[in-house]
Amino acid sequence: MAGKHRSWWGWGHVEDAVTGAEATALADRVRTLLPEADLTEHVAPPVAELGLRPPRVDPPTSLARLCSTDPADRAAHTHGKAFRDVVRNLHGEVHDPPDLVVRPATEQDVVDVLDWCAGRDIAVIPYGGGSSVVGGVEPRLDDAYPAAVSLDLGRLDRVLEVDPTSRAARIQAGVFGPALEDQLRRHDLTLRHFPQSFEFSTLGGWLATRAGGHYATVLTHIDDLVESMRVVTPAGTSQSRRLPGSGAGPSPDRLFLGSEGVLGVITEAWMRLQDRPRWRAGASVHFTDYDLAVEATRAIAQSALHPSNCRLLDPAEALLNAGTATTGGVLVLGFESADHPVTPWLDRAVELCRDHGGTLPEPPRGDDSSGPRQRTAGDAWRSAFLRMPYQRDALAARSMIVETFETACTWDRFPALRAAVLDAAGDALRAVAATGVVTCRFTHVYPDGPAPYFGVYATGRWGATLHQWDQIKHAVSDALLAAGGTITHHHAVGRDHRPWYDRQRPDPVALAMRAAKSALDPSWILNPGVLVDPAG
Amino acid sequence: MAGKHRSWWGWGHVEDAVTGAEATALADRVRTLLPEADLTEHVAPPVAELGLRPPRVDPPTSLARLCSTDPADRAAHTHGKAFRDVVRNLHGEVHDPPDLVVRPATEQDVVDVLDWCAGRDIAVIPYGGGSSVVGGVEPRLDDAYPAAVSLDLGRLDRVLEVDPTSRAARIQAGVFGPALEDQLRRHDLTLRHFPQSFEFSTLGGWLATRAGGHYATVLTHIDDLVESMRVVTPAGTSQSRRLPGSGAGPSPDRLFLGSEGVLGVITEAWMRLQDRPRWRAGASVHFTDYDLAVEATRAIAQSALHPSNCRLLDPAEALLNAGTATTGGVLVLGFESADHPVTPWLDRAVELCRDHGGTLPEPPRGDDSSGPRQRTAGDAWRSAFLRMPYQRDALAARSMIVETFETACTWDRFPALRAAVLDAAGDALRAVAATGVVTCRFTHVYPDGPAPYFGVYATGRWGATLHQWDQIKHAVSDALLAAGGTITHHHAVGRDHRPWYDRQRPDPVALAMRAAKSALDPSWILNPGVLVDPAG
Repeated sequence: MAGKHRSWWGWGHVEDAVTGAEATALADRVRTLLPEADLTEHVAPPVAELGLRPPRVDPPTSLARLCSTDPADRAAHTHGKAFRDVVRNLHGEVHDPPDLVVRPATEQDVVDVLDWCAGRDIAVIPYGGGSSVVGGVEPRLDDAYPAAVSLDLGRLDRVLEVDPTSRAARIQAGVFGPALEDQLRRHDLTLRHFPQSFEFSTLGGWLATRAGGHYATVLTHIDDLVESMRVVTPAGTSQSRRLPGSGAGPSPDRLFLGSEGVLGVITEAWMRLQDRPRWRAGASVHFTDYDLAVEATRAIAQSALHPSNCRLLDPAEALLNAGTATTGGVLVLGFESADHPVTPWLDRAVELCRDHGGTLPEPPRGDDSSGPRQRTAGDAWRSAFLRMPYQRDALAARSMIVETFETACTWDRFPALRAAVLDAAGDALRAVAATGVVTCRFTHVYPDGPAPYFGVYATGRWGATLHQWDQIKHAVSDALLAAGGTITHHHAVGRDHRPWYDRQRPDPVALAMRAAKSALDPSWILNPGVLVDPAG
Repeated sequence: MAGKHRSWWGWGHVEDAVTGAEATALADRVRTLLPEADLTEHVAPPVAELGLRPPRVDPPTSLARLCSTDPADRAAHTHGKAFRDVVRNLHGEVHDPPDLVVRPATEQDVVDVLDWCAGRDIAVIPYGGGSSVVGGVEPRLDDAYPAAVSLDLGRLDRVLEVDPTSRAARIQAGVFGPALEDQLRRHDLTLRHFPQSFEFSTLGGWLATRAGGHYATVLTHIDDLVESMRVVTPAGTSQSRRLPGSGAGPSPDRLFLGSEGVLGVITEAWMRLQDRPRWRAGASVHFTDYDLAVEATRAIAQSALHPSNCRLLDPAEALLNAGTATTGGVLVLGFESADHPVTPWLDRAVELCRDHGGTLPEPPRGDDSSGPRQRTAGDAWRSAFLRMPYQRDALAARSMIVETFETACTWDRFPALRAAVLDAAGDALRAVAATGVVTCRFTHVYPDGPAPYFGVYATGRWGATLHQWDQIKHAVSDALLAAGGTITHHHAVGRDHRPWYDRQRPDPVALAMRAAKSALDPSWILNPGVLVDPAG
């Protein structure tokens, strides 16, 4: 990305923001859908005008070489990249910047920073790509901490070792997706973990938040790709063994997977890799009845065919993000393999769809990749997918409320959950005097249930969209929990999901986590406010 | 099993013990292999002659209806079913019986028993089927505890609820394998968890020990089949949500999976079920070169074909337990599906074998199950598999050392690990003046490594076999750890694996577990000595 610059206030690169004809077309699409939208563009203030609070602490001489007090750096490390983060940035509301951005160059630097901070009760917020959409990297602290450090792992960015026989690599946690894949490509291997944030998130961030990735089935979370982990805690460094499987006590890695920086700082992991796929087959199946489309998807999820892609778009999602009008939605199916043609797998999955009333406007794309590919609803959706965060920013700057939320539930509960969520979102939109649409797709599917992912696109009022969204989010989160879902399937908990996480987590598990936290981080300096509190 | 009686000292049912012609044939096979073996049969003493220590505690009146002080009951609950347990029983060494065997009929009973014991500092050892082979259910206590209770969950044996849409069931933890499958069969569903102990182990035991099951790939451990768990701890009852997947903090279920009774008593779980397979295909592939056989198995494990069976028997294992002579071993392959014929999957797996020099003495068994099946090496091995624990007892009573140990490691390390283990076992056998053979098979395979399972069959001296085995076990465990393996892939840690588990577990994880234990079991009454100690 030579020559490109990261946006301090919004997604990705400044140079890739939605402008010109793309912005016009986007606004036109919104106006078609929501004619009453006020789409006046607002602009984030320059960093110099933010009036950032001066740093409250000086680093010790020994760590000074790692520390930045540059205002742009501190502003960029204040919030994640949720809609509510972008809106606050657009309004210049950058009230709690970290005092220092610290970039360790070695694991020993991480140890030294934790030592220094523990001795001074300085809060330490581990920071990967900063793409959290749940307030996971934000120094939203109470007065218990005299200062806060954002610990940016970005310099720990190398693949250190590759084992081609076991298909695994030892990788530093601060590496971003593209740099990771570049280093693995030399070995003809790939991690194949492609979250929407791929370009702007890191291995350590994926592990700390149990990120969801490329595979719709089987290897759905980064958790499944971990062979061992190395974690620096204030109480010492944890190194688990490289093991393909083990039954020796509760899994040590599962303690740190999803720990969101509160137990330690992940510095390295041995990750399971894949050969690059040689065969691919896919199809986009249209349905006239959404209930039947869900049944077809369930049948595939329970078939053990293990598609790599099995994304059911509901009619609103298919229309909005793939430009496809259906009454029952579109199921985007994909199979891939480095070992064998996958047509028999796809054929059976398509047969299951047809058994449930699915039709294929285009023939399936088979294992032959020589000819020119037809552009399909799946392709259209995928292109839109990568532009979504940039478009979200453009719309947020134009008073729109654009945000997503996601969950997982068992199949028996899904119809009622979706209905309850749509109801709650509709009521909440009305309550905040906004109009809009709510879409639903499945990002991942399991034999016992789907992971539904909802999008909200609504009119807002400039200056009020943060409050409007918070009201909507509160209502849909209550609905998700009441309907038997989880507050997050792969976006993590952070600070924004805490109230619902606390209700969902069994009390004895909270007791155990609090005790584990006290043992590993006795000064409670790591990512305060996330997952667990000292008492209560 | 109406009319059959559980053996107090050995495996399974008294009526199924190896006797008569089977015993003669077994002895003949041993003599062929190890002509110097002294195969004089010894017999376990009757319970009345064990001189059991009288119970040191009386139950309170409110719990008396749940409590047994029957000597046979107490003797049967003193040890698990490892070789070293059976040998001690055969010698009448039953020194530390539980004072009471308590059989709760409801979850509230479990709560009440824990309350009573916590108030009196009485040790509580959760007990499922008692088939532990690692000293997991044995009251091997220091003087810190005035008494010990074996908490036998066997009365909590029902499937409480079935969700056919999500293919899941809420099941009480004390149910044994056959009773569980009987109850699920009415719904045309199956858990398909078939460890060797299936008939004599329980759901709760499988969960507490992260048992390995039927599937050689993907769903290798019971962990993968869990949707949610209910656990009674002294600090309260933990109930996780039914979720097909979640990313909300570290997995609450993973805290209790593998906790071996030290954090709480598992009372119920929602388990993911399978449709009964309609299609099956399989093959037994012979190799002339074991290294190539391993390479073929690795290729299949990395192919994402996901066989349900992928068991590579080394030449010694194939000869001893399947009666098949090869120079490179036998790979037993199986595919199954409730949804689709699996011949394309098997065909590709066989092709991978042929690429590595594998040959098929019999044609593959395809998806047609109508005709009479040929008896194959795989079938022969499977029949032997179910008799193995009974034969182990018969041989233990005849001064033989017959035991297994298992591990997992990455593919790059496997050749050196196997060599080191065979060397260590050979040296140890010589050191204890025993002669024998060591066999190896893979029980499960992963893309990044196999789970090798070793068998030892050696001559021993009556009265010395316990000590002889302990020496061998010590040597091979050291070798496993030094070669990068885990002390257990699916047999659990218990008391027998503690020294190696302590070396393998990262120190910060030990700190976290100790803290979690103190939070959930403040009196440290649950399964003392297993996994974690109060200090040090």
